[in-house]
Amino acid sequence: MGGVPKTALNITCWPKADLDLSILGDIIQGGTEKAIEAGAALVGGHTVDAPELMYGLSVTGIVHPEKFVRNYGACPGEVLILTKNLGIGILTTGLKFDKISDAVLPQLVESMTRLNASAASVMLKYGASACTDVTGYGLLGHASEMAAGNDVRLKIDSGAVPYFADAPALVAQDTYTQAYLANMTFLADKVTFHTDSDAMRHILMEAETSGGLLFSLPAENADAAIAELHATDCPEAAVIGEVVGTDTAHIEVF
Amino acid sequence: MGGVPKTALNITCWPKADLDLSILGDIIQGGTEKAIEAGAALVGGHTVDAPELMYGLSVTGIVHPEKFVRNYGACPGEVLILTKNLGIGILTTGLKFDKISDAVLPQLVESMTRLNASAASVMLKYGASACTDVTGYGLLGHASEMAAGNDVRLKIDSGAVPYFADAPALVAQDTYTQAYLANMTFLADKVTFHTDSDAMRHILMEAETSGGLLFSLPAENADAAIAELHATDCPEAAVIGEVVGTDTAHIEVF
Repeated sequence: MGGVPKTALNITCWPKADLDLSILGDIIQGGTEKAIEAGAALVGGHTVDAPELMYGLSVTGIVHPEKFVRNYGACPGEVLILTKNLGIGILTTGLKFDKISDAVLPQLVESMTRLNASAASVMLKYGASACTDVTGYGLLGHASEMAAGNDVRLKIDSGAVPYFADAPALVAQDTYTQAYLANMTFLADKVTFHTDSDAMRHILMEAETSGGLLFSLPAENADAAIAELHATDCPEAAVIGEVVGTDTAHIEVF
Repeated sequence: MGGVPKTALNITCWPKADLDLSILGDIIQGGTEKAIEAGAALVGGHTVDAPELMYGLSVTGIVHPEKFVRNYGACPGEVLILTKNLGIGILTTGLKFDKISDAVLPQLVESMTRLNASAASVMLKYGASACTDVTGYGLLGHASEMAAGNDVRLKIDSGAVPYFADAPALVAQDTYTQAYLANMTFLADKVTFHTDSDAMRHILMEAETSGGLLFSLPAENADAAIAELHATDCPEAAVIGEVVGTDTAHIEVF
């Protein structure tokens, strides 16, 4: 983390027999706008006919070899900050089954289309020692990589974790992604839960799409970092835990 | 054409329920070896679970803004050179249906795994004015883009076009790709055939995978370019036609 994107290529799998090409135009336009917002030039791409729609950008950028932040390296005494609400995966799955309210959809789209660029600037400015984005492995999956990278123990305060207010009700209706099932298995021996909330256990392990950043930084910088995140485009950013030891990689959720 | 690859990212769609992961390891190792041979650093990638296997490299490189060659710009009087055999698409389709001989398989693999790097060097050295690689649209599809780019007419001598000797027999057994059908429709009003060979019509319009380069260059440089292609890794390279006019984009096949 900490690089600057320079060029982007569209990579698209397109079921041309099933979908109108104008939809592809809209998708590519949206991606192009975001690439430009991120400072990258969209320089080409490739589309293949395929049974299932997929779209992504293959991005190349530059980073100073002494000024980037790995997804591990968190130090005991540091605090953990999360910059976006969890629950995106649950809500998008709910959307597929017509289970989400009209009111939450624009909030969901705003969150997913929000770049992590400002969050990354704050992360770098306040001396983060480890940083990851939160995507398919869920908050705890990505946190477990942070813990395993240099054998640290992380303590997560589930009551402090920001999430979409509609997520628990969807969880109660058995809304989940396939990735959630894989994450649960993967995390079985990596996390100890001290909370009784089934909804929070699920939300913390559920896959995210275009999630926020999770990073650790010195506790004394936390207030200033949170204030700056709130002042830019991450109003939900919060301190969600701390790094508590260096024996064995593990996560405890309270 | 004329750039230098610098970085490569693996892009993979993987049907994990149907295929052993060790196969993915072999595929990525093969791609990595080719990226290194091309001078690019393999710097990461992304794999998604998908119904159909796909693999590709997303490559970023650099090019001098005044020293690259577009896929159009061919001038009347120039000749057209093709650097690899046609028939790769026909043979790989034949392979799927167990129709090809054991003897041809290593030749097919050699052709598909051969970089166009040497061919591109020769193309640049001898002053090519237009260059394209020959892939999914087939020789005539890519040639038609060359013709349309600056409204030139191209004359192709089908008797001079290099192709795998096993291809005509496969064509006679109704071996073709879905892309061939699309190419035929696309080319209907762009090509006039003066040859009676159904096999050659097919071969010229059939999709290629990892095909060679097609480029135009001044006729006086052709012998030297061909000699150098033969001396490097393109023994089948040949002059296959010429650029004959600048009125309307069209291709004539003799």
